[in-house]
Amino acid sequence: MTAAGEPNVSADFVFGTLATDELRLAQLRAATLGVRHGHDVRPADPEPDEPATITVRVGPAVAATRVTAYWTADGRTPAGERGVAAVGTAVELERVATDWDTLTWGYVETWRGVLPGQPERTLVRYRIEAWSEAAPELPSTWATEIAGVVSGDRPPGVTDADAAQFALGGSQLWPIRRDAEAYHVDRERAPDWLRDAVIYQVFVDRFATTDGMPFATPATPGGFYGGTLRGVLQRLDHIAELGATVVWLSPIFPSPSHHGYDASDYGSVEPRLGTEADLRELIAACHRRGLRILLDFAANHVSSDHPAFQRAIRDRTAPEASWFTFTRWPDQYLSFFGVADHPQLDADDPGARAMLVDSARHWLELGVDGFRCDYAQGPSHAFWSVFRAEIRAVAPDSVTLGEIVETPALQHTFAGRLDGCLDFILQAALRGLFAFGTLTPSAFDSLVRRHLAAIPPDFVQPSFLDNHDMNRFLWTVRGDTRRLKLAALCQMTLPGPPIVYYGTEVGQSQERDVRSADGSGHPEESRMPMPWGTEQDGDLLAFYGALIGARRSSPARWGTARTTLIADDASGILAYRCGSGADARIVVLGTSAVPARREVPLEGAWHVELATDPDTTAIRGTDVALGAFGGAILRPA
Amino acid sequence: MTAAGEPNVSADFVFGTLATDELRLAQLRAATLGVRHGHDVRPADPEPDEPATITVRVGPAVAATRVTAYWTADGRTPAGERGVAAVGTAVELERVATDWDTLTWGYVETWRGVLPGQPERTLVRYRIEAWSEAAPELPSTWATEIAGVVSGDRPPGVTDADAAQFALGGSQLWPIRRDAEAYHVDRERAPDWLRDAVIYQVFVDRFATTDGMPFATPATPGGFYGGTLRGVLQRLDHIAELGATVVWLSPIFPSPSHHGYDASDYGSVEPRLGTEADLRELIAACHRRGLRILLDFAANHVSSDHPAFQRAIRDRTAPEASWFTFTRWPDQYLSFFGVADHPQLDADDPGARAMLVDSARHWLELGVDGFRCDYAQGPSHAFWSVFRAEIRAVAPDSVTLGEIVETPALQHTFAGRLDGCLDFILQAALRGLFAFGTLTPSAFDSLVRRHLAAIPPDFVQPSFLDNHDMNRFLWTVRGDTRRLKLAALCQMTLPGPPIVYYGTEVGQSQERDVRSADGSGHPEESRMPMPWGTEQDGDLLAFYGALIGARRSSPARWGTARTTLIADDASGILAYRCGSGADARIVVLGTSAVPARREVPLEGAWHVELATDPDTTAIRGTDVALGAFGGAILRPA
Repeated sequence: MTAAGEPNVSADFVFGTLATDELRLAQLRAATLGVRHGHDVRPADPEPDEPATITVRVGPAVAATRVTAYWTADGRTPAGERGVAAVGTAVELERVATDWDTLTWGYVETWRGVLPGQPERTLVRYRIEAWSEAAPELPSTWATEIAGVVSGDRPPGVTDADAAQFALGGSQLWPIRRDAEAYHVDRERAPDWLRDAVIYQVFVDRFATTDGMPFATPATPGGFYGGTLRGVLQRLDHIAELGATVVWLSPIFPSPSHHGYDASDYGSVEPRLGTEADLRELIAACHRRGLRILLDFAANHVSSDHPAFQRAIRDRTAPEASWFTFTRWPDQYLSFFGVADHPQLDADDPGARAMLVDSARHWLELGVDGFRCDYAQGPSHAFWSVFRAEIRAVAPDSVTLGEIVETPALQHTFAGRLDGCLDFILQAALRGLFAFGTLTPSAFDSLVRRHLAAIPPDFVQPSFLDNHDMNRFLWTVRGDTRRLKLAALCQMTLPGPPIVYYGTEVGQSQERDVRSADGSGHPEESRMPMPWGTEQDGDLLAFYGALIGARRSSPARWGTARTTLIADDASGILAYRCGSGADARIVVLGTSAVPARREVPLEGAWHVELATDPDTTAIRGTDVALGAFGGAILRPA
Repeated sequence: MTAAGEPNVSADFVFGTLATDELRLAQLRAATLGVRHGHDVRPADPEPDEPATITVRVGPAVAATRVTAYWTADGRTPAGERGVAAVGTAVELERVATDWDTLTWGYVETWRGVLPGQPERTLVRYRIEAWSEAAPELPSTWATEIAGVVSGDRPPGVTDADAAQFALGGSQLWPIRRDAEAYHVDRERAPDWLRDAVIYQVFVDRFATTDGMPFATPATPGGFYGGTLRGVLQRLDHIAELGATVVWLSPIFPSPSHHGYDASDYGSVEPRLGTEADLRELIAACHRRGLRILLDFAANHVSSDHPAFQRAIRDRTAPEASWFTFTRWPDQYLSFFGVADHPQLDADDPGARAMLVDSARHWLELGVDGFRCDYAQGPSHAFWSVFRAEIRAVAPDSVTLGEIVETPALQHTFAGRLDGCLDFILQAALRGLFAFGTLTPSAFDSLVRRHLAAIPPDFVQPSFLDNHDMNRFLWTVRGDTRRLKLAALCQMTLPGPPIVYYGTEVGQSQERDVRSADGSGHPEESRMPMPWGTEQDGDLLAFYGALIGARRSSPARWGTARTTLIADDASGILAYRCGSGADARIVVLGTSAVPARREVPLEGAWHVELATDPDTTAIRGTDVALGAFGGAILRPA
C-alpha cells in the first residue's frame, strides 16, 4: 500500500437506470419533452381536510391547450377523456408559467390544480391528462413516469410516438403507464425509534450458522453457506453489545437464491434458514434485548418459481395472470432489469396487492417491527400509500424503509408513502471523501449540507458505508482500518440513523472487485461469511462500540444546529459542530494520509471524547493535531 | 418540383454557440455547475424607487456557504471580497431553495437578495460572489456568463478550474468575466410606433443603385454591386407603396466589406454608399412619407482596420489598448467567433463605450429613429442599459432592437435594456411549418402560443421569414410562391411587427445554398441585387401590399384575444381568431400540398377579406375550403 493510500478501485460502479451520463441525459430529455408530474403534490403528505396542489409540466413534444386531473376518493380508478370524467371528478388545471428549456430546445409549461381536502384514511387516486381543444384528432397525453426498463420489451399502452421519444441509441427507455397516482390522507409519522436507531444489516445465509458450526463451502460464492435464523439468535449478543438497536434481516422467505430477493412465497420461512418458530423466537429474543427487527420485503418482483407466476404462464385466464405484465403471453413479460427469472409484479393489481399486504400483516402480527422495502421505486406510489396505511392499522409503531436508487428528487416523492429510504447519495459522498478521494472536504461538506437541507420533514434517511450490493469499504481502501474508522466517525455523527453492514465492524473484507474488468458482476464478494472469534479485528470492534455509544448518548444531537467550522482542502481537515450547550460536540476529521494540524475556532475549552487514534490526536487551546486519517469527537470541557 | 413540394434543404443551418445538441448540453452543464445569475432581476426593468430582487443559482461545483452582492449607484465598478465591500455596498443573499439536478448529478441552491430602490436615471451596477466561511482558503466564485467564444483563446481571469469545467470535446467554451451586471432605473418604454411597425430590411450594397444604373458584376458574390443611399432614396416609393412604415438599412459606416458589419469608423458614411448629405436627404424623404429609419449598429466588434485597433496593436499603452481584450498582445485577442479581422470591442471599457455612445448620438441628431443592434448579446447588459438611457436623452422616441440569437430565455433578460429583439425562434417555427414541414400545425401552434406567452411586457419581437444570414424562404421551397404567401399571411397576423427582407415581396430567390456540403458558407447567396421592373413578380407584390394593408388596418388586433380554432395535423389546417367585435378576424391556413376542407367553428357569418388564392378559397356556413397551400383572412360579414 502506498503512503497516499491508493484505493483498490477508483470509484463505485453505479447501478440502475441513471448509471451513466448518457442514461441521465436521455431520461431527463424524455421526461422534459412529455407530460411530467413527478409526484409533485404539495404538501407531499396531505393531512385530513388539507387540499393538495398538483403540478404538472408539459414539454415541447406535447401540443396541449388543456390539462385535466381526474380523481377519486373511494378507491376506484379514476377515468375520463378530454376534460369529462367517466369515473370520479374532473379538475381543470391552470397554466402558471411558461419557461424555456435549452436541453429540449423548447418551452415547458407549468400547470397547477387543487384536489379538495379529504377525511382521514382516504386514498386519493388521480391521473392527469393533457389534451388540445384546437386539435380534437390529437390523442391525449397522460402524465407518465419514466421506467427503469432499459432494453426490455415495450410495455403495453406505449405508443410508437412514445417509443421514438424514449429511444436511446441502441436501447430504449420506456414510460411506465400507471392506472393512477395516489396519496393517502392520514396523520402517520415515522416513529421516534427509527430516528434514534442504529441498524445492523444481517445477510442471513452469511452471518451465523446454528450452534456455531463451520460455514459450508459451496462450489461458487453464489451457493449456500449455511447461515440460519437460529444462528442470528445465537449471535444476538454480538449485535446488542455493539450497541445496535435494530436488526435488519436479508430476505427470509422461500427463494431459490442465496440472497432471497426473488421470493417464491411471501407467507413462510425459507427452510434452509429455519422455521417460523425460529423467527418467532428470534423476534422475542430481540425484543427482550430492546432490539427491533426489520424484514427485507421485495414487492417489485418474484421468483419465476412463484406459484402465481407459474399459474399465470400456464393459464392466461388465471386470476394471477393480471399480477404480471405480459408483452407477449406467456414468454415475454416485464421483469426486473430484463432478468427473466425475476418477473415484475404489478403491485397495483388488486390481487397482487392483497397478497403482498396480507403477507406483510402476517409478519407484523408475528412481531416484526417493519420492512426494508427492496427496489421500492418499482411498485407505484399508490401501492406504498396503501401498504403503509394497511400495516399501520395492524402495527401502529411499524416502519417502511425504501431502497430507492436514482435521484434524491425521486426519493423525496416517497415522503408520506414510506417512512424514509436508504441514503445512497450520502453513501457515495462518504466513499468519495474517505475511500476514493474523489471529493475534497469542501466539496463533501457542500454536497452533504445541501443534501440534508433537501430532505423533506418526517422522512428518515439511514446512512451506510457499504452493503451487500457493493464493494466493502475496507476492501476499497486496501484494508486501511484508519480510513474505515474515520468514515464511520463521520457516518455516526450525521443526522440519519446509521446502518452497519455485518462484518464491517470487525474488519471483514473481500477477495476481489464485485465488478470484473469484463463488466460481469460478483456481488457475492461482499457477502462472504462473517468471521467469528479471533478472526475479528478487536480494536476496530471496540472503536465501533465506543462510536455507537457516543452516537446513542444523544441521537438527535447530530441533526441539531449543525455548523461547518473548517472544510480545508489543503490540510484535508473537515470539522463541524452539532448540538448546543453541554450536549454540543465538535467532530474533527483529518482526511489526509499525513498528520494534519489546524487552528479550529473552538470557542471555549474542549476535550477529546473519542478518537480514531488516541496516540496522535491532541487539542491545545484551539489547535487540533490529527494523525494520518485521524479524527475525533470533542466535548465541552 | 414534386407535388408534395420537397424543400431545397431539409432545415436551416443554425448559427451560434448553441447550434448543436452537444453545444447546448455542454453550455447547460457548465452553467449549472457554477454560479449562475443569468440576469435574473425581478422586476426585469425596475422603476424608480422599486427594489430589485436578484436570484443566483449555485451549482454542485461550487462549495459556498455565503453569497454576497456588491453594488454601486454612482457608476463605479462595485468590488469586495468575502462579504466585505471595497467599492459600493454589500448585500447578503439568502438561500431559498435546494434542488436536485440530474444533469450535473448534484444539488443546485437558489439564493436571493434585494437591492434597494433608486431614483430615476440611476445605473445600478452589481456583482455576485459565492464564498465559503468554513473554507477560507477556497477562492470565491463570481457569477459569470457563458461566452460565445467556442475555440478562441482563453479570456483573461479564467482559471484552470474554469477551463476544465467549460471544456467541450476538442474545443472549449469560456465564461465571460464581466466587471459587473447592471440595470438602469428609468421609465423608458418601447414607443408605440415600433409595435405598429412594418419594417423593410434593406441591404444597401444590393438594393438599388443611383439613378437606376445597372448593378456592378464583381468577380465574387462578396464584391461590391454598387447599391447606394441615393439608390434607396430613389426607390423609396417601392417601400412606401408596399405599406412598410420603417426602413432598416444594413450598416452604412466605412468598412472593408460588402456587408459593413465590421466598421472601421462609426462617425461617417462609407463613401461607396454615399455621403452624410445623402443620408440626411434620405432621412428627410423617409420622414416626409411617414417612414421611420433605423441604422444597423455593430457594437460587438470592429474591423481590424479600425484606427483604434491599429493604435492598440502598435502601442500597448495607447488608451485604445483597453478597448480590446488581448490574450497575448499584440497578436492574440478576443474576436467575433475567432475571426481575427473582427476584433471584439470591450463595450464596458469607458473609452470604447464613449465612442459608441457618441457615435449613436450623432446619427440620432442627424434624424435616424434608432438602431438594429448587431450581435447584441456580445456587449454586456450594463452597456445596453447605458446605451439606451443615453440615446433616449437625445431622441426620446428612438428605439434599440437587438439581434440576439440563442435562447429566448437569454433574449428576455434584455427587457429594460433594449426595446426588443428579432424573433429567431418564431422565424424557425415559421420555416419549420411552411418551408421544411418539420413542424405540424399543432406543434407550431403549441410552440407559438408558449413563445408569445413567454415574451416579457414591453419587449417587442419583430418577426421575419428570412434575412441576409440565411437562405431566402422562396429558395428553400423551390420557388413555390404559394408557400411564401401562406407563410407571410401567418407572419403578418402574428403579434410582433413584421420585417420584410428586401426582394422577398417580389419573388427574389438565389442560386445555391448559403451552406455548402463541405460546410463552407456563402451568405452572399441571399444578398443578390434586387430585381426591378419586369423581373419582379407583380402578383406576389400585390399580395404583399394587400396583406400589409390588412395588417396595418389594426396592428394591435393580432396580439389581442388570440384563440386557436383548429390545429389539425391530418388536414394540415391551422385556424386562429384575433381581436373582437367588428375588428375580429379569423385566419385560416392550409399547409397541405393538396386542397383541404374543414368545418371551422366560425360562430356568426364571415367573409373572405384576403386570400392567397381567391379562386379556390371559399366559405359556406362554417365550411372552409382551401386550395393547396392556400390561406385567407376572414372578417365578420
